[in-house]
Amino acid sequence: MYDFSADSADCARAIEAGLSDYLSGARLSGPGPAADRVIAAMRHGSLEGGKRLRPLLVRQAAAIFSVPRDAALQAGMAVEMVHCYSLIHDDLPAMDDDDLRRGRPTVHKAYDEATAILAGDALLTHAFAILAAPACHDDAEVRIRLVAELALGSGAGGMVGGQMRDIEGETSGFTEAEIATMQAMKTGALIRASVRMGAILGGADPRALSALTAYAEAAGRAFQLADDILDVTATSEAMGKATGKDAALGKQTVVARLGLEGARAMLNATVHEAISALRTFGPRADGLRATAHYFASREK
Amino acid sequence: MYDFSADSADCARAIEAGLSDYLSGARLSGPGPAADRVIAAMRHGSLEGGKRLRPLLVRQAAAIFSVPRDAALQAGMAVEMVHCYSLIHDDLPAMDDDDLRRGRPTVHKAYDEATAILAGDALLTHAFAILAAPACHDDAEVRIRLVAELALGSGAGGMVGGQMRDIEGETSGFTEAEIATMQAMKTGALIRASVRMGAILGGADPRALSALTAYAEAAGRAFQLADDILDVTATSEAMGKATGKDAALGKQTVVARLGLEGARAMLNATVHEAISALRTFGPRADGLRATAHYFASREK
Repeated sequence: MYDFSADSADCARAIEAGLSDYLSGARLSGPGPAADRVIAAMRHGSLEGGKRLRPLLVRQAAAIFSVPRDAALQAGMAVEMVHCYSLIHDDLPAMDDDDLRRGRPTVHKAYDEATAILAGDALLTHAFAILAAPACHDDAEVRIRLVAELALGSGAGGMVGGQMRDIEGETSGFTEAEIATMQAMKTGALIRASVRMGAILGGADPRALSALTAYAEAAGRAFQLADDILDVTATSEAMGKATGKDAALGKQTVVARLGLEGARAMLNATVHEAISALRTFGPRADGLRATAHYFASREK
Repeated sequence: MYDFSADSADCARAIEAGLSDYLSGARLSGPGPAADRVIAAMRHGSLEGGKRLRPLLVRQAAAIFSVPRDAALQAGMAVEMVHCYSLIHDDLPAMDDDDLRRGRPTVHKAYDEATAILAGDALLTHAFAILAAPACHDDAEVRIRLVAELALGSGAGGMVGGQMRDIEGETSGFTEAEIATMQAMKTGALIRASVRMGAILGGADPRALSALTAYAEAAGRAFQLADDILDVTATSEAMGKATGKDAALGKQTVVARLGLEGARAMLNATVHEAISALRTFGPRADGLRATAHYFASREK
């Protein structure tokens, strides 16, 4: 019987320990020793916080193919570092201009803007260093596929492209199709990459990879729907960041279009869609099933 | 007989064409189509300009092992994209706050700060996508070594760490050793990675890789010395960017310490050191020799 709370807590602990160890200096060295201030800012922006859902998805997808938890850790760390870099840059004054993240000062508030830009750059860069190292997986062919997956998921046709579209939409307005594309890229792409990276670690055949991609795309939409709903219903205190921002900015979220009940009905249907994509996998996919359900019930 | 002008012009043309093709959209796609505005900003920050010295070093190092020019193109594009991303981010108001680059508006001037941050992020991300694609090299083991080399050269113990140290030094002052470390990381690390990536493409054995690393480290110092000298002697018009900034900021460059003649003597000695490291390679290393000489004689 899969225990979501235990597995997600274990994953969060392992990621926290893994990142803290990686970001302690030795493995960050290049031609020179890593700069202390950028290390401190990288740690501030990536340690002590976050639900580590993306590494959990890597681990859960890999578990379908009997990959041990530890063997999915490095890839999970890489995805989490990309997620954390994107938060650091998104929080900058030129972007969302947020002072709080997970209840603590954002990196540019705790340090300064230049340091936050560089810390984000370094987290992104080292995500690829982690995937390239033999500790990630024995087979170079697997590691290079992970690099490709993470790069395309987080690049101009993925996460960064979604963030760009979001900024553009704030000034020029969105159609419904444009919202869907933007959200699929901004938050969906990295969730999709996480699941696919787990599948790649497990040596998934094309058919299994395709089913898991369908799961991931629906799960990503569910995650975004839950986020839009929480932006309306949750308090800033519970979320550890500002809420109500979407409405204040006049953002065309699904909640604004369908109302709260309509958005909740769509969320449940989307979770069902994600779970349906897993039908061929049996109990080893219980982790991914539980995460999809979690997306529908989370309160922060 | 190696012709530096012809080879460097050919390399610049190939890189320009390769980047323009890559940045036209199709290969940038991820889960969604790349956002037009970020593509435009990536193009602004990477096309029509620059001497493309880093891809030239990749090509010249690879040539020692008889790697054809075309086979070094993708790796050269990746290094150049990392170089261009670093310029975009360094030019931001929170960093060097430059309005001009290569005689044109910097990316945040031509677009806006948020777009410049995202365009830099995307260029960095896609540099790794290029190295991960089979078009870069048939052998996954070679491609993953290129990823590792570029990531460590441009990360917290390389280029980004050097930029961080440079910013810190502006407020707290530097010792001579700290200047050397900062410069070896800020500009040296990517030059070193370029040469080593060419060697990796060529299947260099450890001894050859070590000799080429020694060349690259000396060449990097020569490049920086030439830059410091040009900051004093060249006009803003010739350089296409602001000059005299080092002195205005009270930066402890070698020119400030040794005077112009002392710095020129050190530049010549450093070029000699770089060329000495190539002694075992014969005429196939004439490209790298010519580039080291070029560093001593360049006027912009």
